[in-house]
Amino acid sequence: MERTAIIVAGGSGRRLGGPVPKQFQTVKGRPLLMWTIEAFHAADPDMALIVVLPREHFDIWKALCMGHRFFIKHDVVAGGEQRWHSVKAGSEKVEGDGLVAVHDGVRPLVSADLIKRCFAAAGEKAAAIPVVPVVPSIRETTAEGSRALDRSRLLAVQTPQCFHADLLRKAFEQPYETTFTDEATLVERLGVKVALVEGEENNIKVTTAVDMKVAELLL
Amino acid sequence: MERTAIIVAGGSGRRLGGPVPKQFQTVKGRPLLMWTIEAFHAADPDMALIVVLPREHFDIWKALCMGHRFFIKHDVVAGGEQRWHSVKAGSEKVEGDGLVAVHDGVRPLVSADLIKRCFAAAGEKAAAIPVVPVVPSIRETTAEGSRALDRSRLLAVQTPQCFHADLLRKAFEQPYETTFTDEATLVERLGVKVALVEGEENNIKVTTAVDMKVAELLL
Repeated sequence: MERTAIIVAGGSGRRLGGPVPKQFQTVKGRPLLMWTIEAFHAADPDMALIVVLPREHFDIWKALCMGHRFFIKHDVVAGGEQRWHSVKAGSEKVEGDGLVAVHDGVRPLVSADLIKRCFAAAGEKAAAIPVVPVVPSIRETTAEGSRALDRSRLLAVQTPQCFHADLLRKAFEQPYETTFTDEATLVERLGVKVALVEGEENNIKVTTAVDMKVAELLL
Repeated sequence: MERTAIIVAGGSGRRLGGPVPKQFQTVKGRPLLMWTIEAFHAADPDMALIVVLPREHFDIWKALCMGHRFFIKHDVVAGGEQRWHSVKAGSEKVEGDGLVAVHDGVRPLVSADLIKRCFAAAGEKAAAIPVVPVVPSIRETTAEGSRALDRSRLLAVQTPQCFHADLLRKAFEQPYETTFTDEATLVERLGVKVALVEGEENNIKVTTAVDMKVAELLL
């Protein structure tokens, strides 16, 4: 079955404070986003790769690819205002009825093994996402204040989130809601059950300057 | 009002793989636990400090303190099998009716400001804990599979957890339960409401080798 990865790098990187969006910041000699793209290419060299970027970053990205002699073939698609718009734009570029992974551009540490396991589970169950245990105690705010949740029942969601291509496209036909958190939630609204795959502790989302240092250590 | 900090360093450090428990591992030239103790001493030099350690670590700790010329005055109390037993042991050493902070020995990055704000809130409201927003999407397992939780309502709990001393002692008169997660939950079972204080992103709990590297960067 044909496999496509939509790698979402729509963020402006403002959280890192610098003028360079975080997906373009250099880790171990090259931009974070290149590590992420390579992880998918390494897992399956035949996989189609769609990278979603803000349109204003197209030229920077092109220049970076040339400068770093980054030759892994990929399509570039213009993202939108929010993640929802970016993933929708990416999903509209997916051809055929294969499997699609949606992955954060700033999760460069995903392993080939995890990518394969998520695709395999989605192939069987139509929708699959990687999850890991939640480390800290978690509370939920309530009208009266807050209450402790049972941590043993909680899971933190990672990417790649994998789906049958037609299911993902159908999920994005639903109207946009500001409460959107991830693709799995959208797919569930169609009544489809999402399978859980064991994620990886190291598959971190690089969102802060400290995370950049951790990525540097782990890559 | 008298202030005491119970610093819990009962862990055997097995998660780090080495023979040295993590609270004794060296960060920036000295054991992690010394940084944590110093953070409380710096916040208030008059604060009474109780360090809870496994009895088999007493000699190592004494030797480390001598070797590092670590002269901040503190009492050492023998911990128990689980965190519950260790905090209970510490709470039994607290004298008088002041305020008590319970803090993870492996959270060396806590700021003086956060310590003061937690004590201040506990002084007013009897019980206060620091919380931070939850970064990843969170799911809860259910009988049918799992469901997404509303992340905007979730909070990750940190330490120091601060209480009126008599309240903490009373909380630990309740029978031990294996589902114990933190002191705040125990106190709530007495019908006391726990106030929430804004925590700190950098106030990480050092539990893995990667966390040690992050602590090294941040200290």
